[in-house]
Amino acid sequence: MATRRFAADDQKLNDLYADLATADLQPLWLLQGLLPAVPDGLSPHLWRWKELRELAARAGDLVTIERGGDRRVLSLAHPGLGGLPFATHTLWGAVQFLGARERAPAHRHSPAALRFVLEGSGVWTLVNGDPVRMGPGDLVLTPSYSWHEHHNPGDEPMIWFDGLDLPLVRNLDAVFFEPGPDVPPAYVQVSGSHSEQHYGSAGLAPVGAVPPPTGPPGSGAHSPLLAYRWAETDARLAAILEVSGRESAIVRYVDPGSGRDIMPTLRAEMHRLRARCRTSTVRTVGSAIWVVYRGSGQTVVGDQRFEWGPGDMFVTPSWVPVDHEATEQADLFMLSDTPLIAAAELYRTEVVSARG
Amino acid sequence: MATRRFAADDQKLNDLYADLATADLQPLWLLQGLLPAVPDGLSPHLWRWKELRELAARAGDLVTIERGGDRRVLSLAHPGLGGLPFATHTLWGAVQFLGARERAPAHRHSPAALRFVLEGSGVWTLVNGDPVRMGPGDLVLTPSYSWHEHHNPGDEPMIWFDGLDLPLVRNLDAVFFEPGPDVPPAYVQVSGSHSEQHYGSAGLAPVGAVPPPTGPPGSGAHSPLLAYRWAETDARLAAILEVSGRESAIVRYVDPGSGRDIMPTLRAEMHRLRARCRTSTVRTVGSAIWVVYRGSGQTVVGDQRFEWGPGDMFVTPSWVPVDHEATEQADLFMLSDTPLIAAAELYRTEVVSARG
Amino acid sequence: MATRRFAADDQKLNDLYADLATADLQPLWLLQGLLPAVPDGLSPHLWRWKELRELAARAGDLVTIERGGDRRVLSLAHPGLGGLPFATHTLWGAVQFLGARERAPAHRHSPAALRFVLEGSGVWTLVNGDPVRMGPGDLVLTPSYSWHEHHNPGDEPMIWFDGLDLPLVRNLDAVFFEPGPDVPPAYVQVSGSHSEQHYGSAGLAPVGAVPPPTGPPGSGAHSPLLAYRWAETDARLAAILEVSGRESAIVRYVDPGSGRDIMPTLRAEMHRLRARCRTSTVRTVGSAIWVVYRGSGQTVVGDQRFEWGPGDMFVTPSWVPVDHEATEQADLFMLSDTPLIAAAELYRTEVVSARG
Amino acid sequence: MATRRFAADDQKLNDLYADLATADLQPLWLLQGLLPAVPDGLSPHLWRWKELRELAARAGDLVTIERGGDRRVLSLAHPGLGGLPFATHTLWGAVQFLGARERAPAHRHSPAALRFVLEGSGVWTLVNGDPVRMGPGDLVLTPSYSWHEHHNPGDEPMIWFDGLDLPLVRNLDAVFFEPGPDVPPAYVQVSGSHSEQHYGSAGLAPVGAVPPPTGPPGSGAHSPLLAYRWAETDARLAAILEVSGRESAIVRYVDPGSGRDIMPTLRAEMHRLRARCRTSTVRTVGSAIWVVYRGSGQTVVGDQRFEWGPGDMFVTPSWVPVDHEATEQADLFMLSDTPLIAAAELYRTEVVSARG
Repeated sequence: MATRRFAADDQKLNDLYADLATADLQPLWLLQGLLPAVPDGLSPHLWRWKELRELAARAGDLVTIERGGDRRVLSLAHPGLGGLPFATHTLWGAVQFLGARERAPAHRHSPAALRFVLEGSGVWTLVNGDPVRMGPGDLVLTPSYSWHEHHNPGDEPMIWFDGLDLPLVRNLDAVFFEPGPDVPPAYVQVSGSHSEQHYGSAGLAPVGAVPPPTGPPGSGAHSPLLAYRWAETDARLAAILEVSGRESAIVRYVDPGSGRDIMPTLRAEMHRLRARCRTSTVRTVGSAIWVVYRGSGQTVVGDQRFEWGPGDMFVTPSWVPVDHEATEQADLFMLSDTPLIAAAELYRTEVVSARG
Repeated sequence: MATRRFAADDQKLNDLYADLATADLQPLWLLQGLLPAVPDGLSPHLWRWKELRELAARAGDLVTIERGGDRRVLSLAHPGLGGLPFATHTLWGAVQFLGARERAPAHRHSPAALRFVLEGSGVWTLVNGDPVRMGPGDLVLTPSYSWHEHHNPGDEPMIWFDGLDLPLVRNLDAVFFEPGPDVPPAYVQVSGSHSEQHYGSAGLAPVGAVPPPTGPPGSGAHSPLLAYRWAETDARLAAILEVSGRESAIVRYVDPGSGRDIMPTLRAEMHRLRARCRTSTVRTVGSAIWVVYRGSGQTVVGDQRFEWGPGDMFVTPSWVPVDHEATEQADLFMLSDTPLIAAAELYRTEVVSARG
Repeated sequence: MATRRFAADDQKLNDLYADLATADLQPLWLLQGLLPAVPDGLSPHLWRWKELRELAARAGDLVTIERGGDRRVLSLAHPGLGGLPFATHTLWGAVQFLGARERAPAHRHSPAALRFVLEGSGVWTLVNGDPVRMGPGDLVLTPSYSWHEHHNPGDEPMIWFDGLDLPLVRNLDAVFFEPGPDVPPAYVQVSGSHSEQHYGSAGLAPVGAVPPPTGPPGSGAHSPLLAYRWAETDARLAAILEVSGRESAIVRYVDPGSGRDIMPTLRAEMHRLRARCRTSTVRTVGSAIWVVYRGSGQTVVGDQRFEWGPGDMFVTPSWVPVDHEATEQADLFMLSDTPLIAAAELYRTEVVSARG
Repeated sequence: MATRRFAADDQKLNDLYADLATADLQPLWLLQGLLPAVPDGLSPHLWRWKELRELAARAGDLVTIERGGDRRVLSLAHPGLGGLPFATHTLWGAVQFLGARERAPAHRHSPAALRFVLEGSGVWTLVNGDPVRMGPGDLVLTPSYSWHEHHNPGDEPMIWFDGLDLPLVRNLDAVFFEPGPDVPPAYVQVSGSHSEQHYGSAGLAPVGAVPPPTGPPGSGAHSPLLAYRWAETDARLAAILEVSGRESAIVRYVDPGSGRDIMPTLRAEMHRLRARCRTSTVRTVGSAIWVVYRGSGQTVVGDQRFEWGPGDMFVTPSWVPVDHEATEQADLFMLSDTPLIAAAELYRTEVVSARG
């Protein structure tokens, strides 16, 4: 934040300011921009899939996955964040590339992560030992402090979107990390993970079922369901559009055991817009990353306009008016920091301009 | 409760007791059994499917469904309840018979109801206008104060188990009832109700979806999912048995929007026991009705032992030790008053004798 | 409930009814009054203090307090309850008389109890060993399954109102009772109980403080504050009247650790009406007992009208319109079953006629 | 965070890195320190009262309070935060100086604030128009988006500690600010604010009382009690020490309507240590500011040791072991970000070394 220029020809005042600096104190009345009228966060920003995909594939050719790096990940580094590898002040977004027959080794960390698969199939993510198959359009969770590793026993690479609350958890000085064993575990490639076997039916809760494997004290509650399959998401969106007769539909990925967001810090949704549907213009406290899964269209974010197609990713900042318009029917994956904003009782949303 | 015999040869004391009676007061020290050491509720009781089915079918022949009666229902009337048509102090259980081409007219009431289908198919229950198909093993909810009516457009009768919290709601002096219009509504016989279209996938919550139709203020929150299909229940139980390697599995029917019990007053579960599995002996505060869906076996309740097969129904009273043993693999539907017992902070459960 | 008269000259129908009775089944279509349009509970009823006090004092002269009876209590036995010693279907109300130098021995039970002191001072109630002083207008809690005993080391008797959820807990088949040791404990007569020392300041929660002594599993959470002093209640009511400029004020007794009602099953409030204030006419699901602490006035309950003065007690049934009018400034203590009604999602309230 | 040095003599790799930078992407495998094993936040830091007081008084002489600056506040600017005027990554701490007959004008903001008074008396803070008297040891809340202004009608200055969640709210891009009217309001200097009149008694909740004045949608729930008086805090701490026989006591300032922390983002506590008491060594996720109110002693924070007396302020960072030792009986006010850490399910605490 800028410091207000002050004509301090008074020597006493100059002395005071010098003494304050020495004492590690700052005078509030010289601080400008500390309390803006409304959030003045980042600018909107878009990354193109063409570039993301090409660079990820090149990294796949040139860089191996080894202990230390652990993952072949390209993070969305918002140019407004001064070199930090973050998409917004609270959210990490990235593309991850796992080549044929590669393995990303086990580790765990307090930041929570989710994966939304964009391309490829036949990869297995082991979450606390439970093998979770990954395919296009699937959402896979690796909650806070759960052990996770990625295995690609197949012949084609996979690319997915990684979303984490890492910047937020860093701001809270709460990052813990632990590498896993170097020996890859044996696992059975069954199509349904234990998690899905137990929690995969709406409204049916196993009694006395496998407790979620726990890390150290405070490693956090999370959804017991670790995979949300595209076939289900797709069917649900289609049904809601049909039943409601509306032009757009949204499903939120939630913890089936509580109905709450999948992570205490992260909200994820899939938005479907019929062709030519334009949404209301809305502004909301908190930032979001949008990943285009299918279709094409455009989004107006404040005074910017992004045309997008499959795989493109963009950021919508806090309190900036946003609306989407589909050219052809489109599916947009959204990740936001809403749950923590709401926990802090700071959530606000406002329809700037209402449409169908 | 019995009154303590008291040798009151003292005339003054006799006068006092007479005056107390006149004043609508009772002396605590003469009341016996008011505060028993442990709950001394009802005895266990069993109703045989053979009898239930035969009597329901005879009623189907002899009694029409008309306004006023509204339903062809035979209620389980526990002989220990002095003529009240209730299964326990808190629970209503019954068999309902809906003949070919019959309709049970619309009404609504504050007691919450659920239906577990035992025989027949092709019946539609309209819940607040949403047509819900009914088939064997399905659980269908008609929550507190939701309009509901039953249509059988087919050629075969259906018999289902009705479970309600009616005795409980009567004890709370909170029964409201309203008859619906006499004109049967038009509806489309689609296999998926709007409710299932919106809420039928685990962990996918529609955003801004149809709000549950509401009755008068205070008519209550309830699960937005109105049907729990046998195919899902069966698959989940099979998967849990397989994954866990255990001899028995339980799924609880819950509100997918909150993970809580389907009704604020009622818990419903399906218990599967492999052949020869015998459960631990457990006693619990609160009463339950058990409906055998498939298989055969026996249940020991206190000092009684019930042998059972498909369609048999029995009551397990509060705090009486209970265990089940399957002769062949068995599925037992259970309905209990646990949620309200728990809300009153009166829930206790105790393993009397632990087994596999 | 009445059974509908039915002209069953059909022999087959007669046979069916006979067979149903034999099979412990009842046909719903013959049951009248099972589902009334609105709650048709008890009638209102009033007990006069003059009588209550006189009879309690006579009992004090004639009946000793001994093991077995444990308490010298006269229960309000609503004449509409067929001889049961209960004030409503859910609430127990009573006057308790503890003579000079008497002791009522220790016991505990799952029904929760509260005491509102009407006359006398210098009595100590030990709650889980914590000595709680009792004086006029004080509310003292003995929550579910807490040990409690009453000691009167002084020279004058005390009379208080006892309120319990006993009828409700009986309906739930959840009554547990345990007598305490026969040896009276030593205790120090300090003016502030440990409970008050720890929890007696608004908004100040002791960290790592004495946990509430627990009974068996499931014996329930409750307010850690065991005494609500009249001086505080009086001051708060006076302040609200002054600050708000209104004609009436209500304070609810709540758990200071959660803001919830003092018991999971019971709500308690103190209502102050300025002279000549007449409240709105309101009807509410659930029943209540009212105890006049000070002042005089009248209450209209449905089609009845009760004139009342200090110490009078009356019952207002479920869903019957109620309003109060003070002749002189009046304080009315109210006990209701609202928390459990609300937990069952059955609560409704309606202003029938709005006033000041 | 540092970037790993990488010997990229491979031209293709160099080209990739250049293209990534151009595309606003960063390779995870070059980022070091992104995921430390444990939180490596700030260093501990202490500010001396002697300096704080002297500099605040000099500012009082030299700087007037005017629109734009609004407040005469010296913020604790942790030297490890690169010039930001914050005490930790999440907490703002400051001393505020209000001279005799001064007024700090009305404004409101989404960051929540609290004041702990160190010196002076006779100041009034108006919170949404409710005049709250301030005196030494009092804690006064100005919750998120509540209008507030400070009036000093007296002859002596007041100095208080200001604690805010401003850095946290900035990280969440959720800062809103609005200046109030320039006309000072009339108000009555009564000793009890409306807030205290309504909510000042433990366990007594006004029914239908003044709703807390609300700001724009989402401006947040907060404690209805705005002032926590030193006399109460002092009495409670003394009572707990006496009753428990322990060497230290803690009270947490909570919302009396819910028992939760006073703000969704902030925890405040008062810790009393008897002379010579040394606490256990504990580390906890999240940072805290400590303000010495009375007494003297020392605190060991990681490898540093601070000796302190009245008015001194220090910061304890996330996950660094902390213990306190009192030379003479001491009262320490603590402010932390625990509620939001807990909402994010990131809270952990660990006793490193246990002591009495």
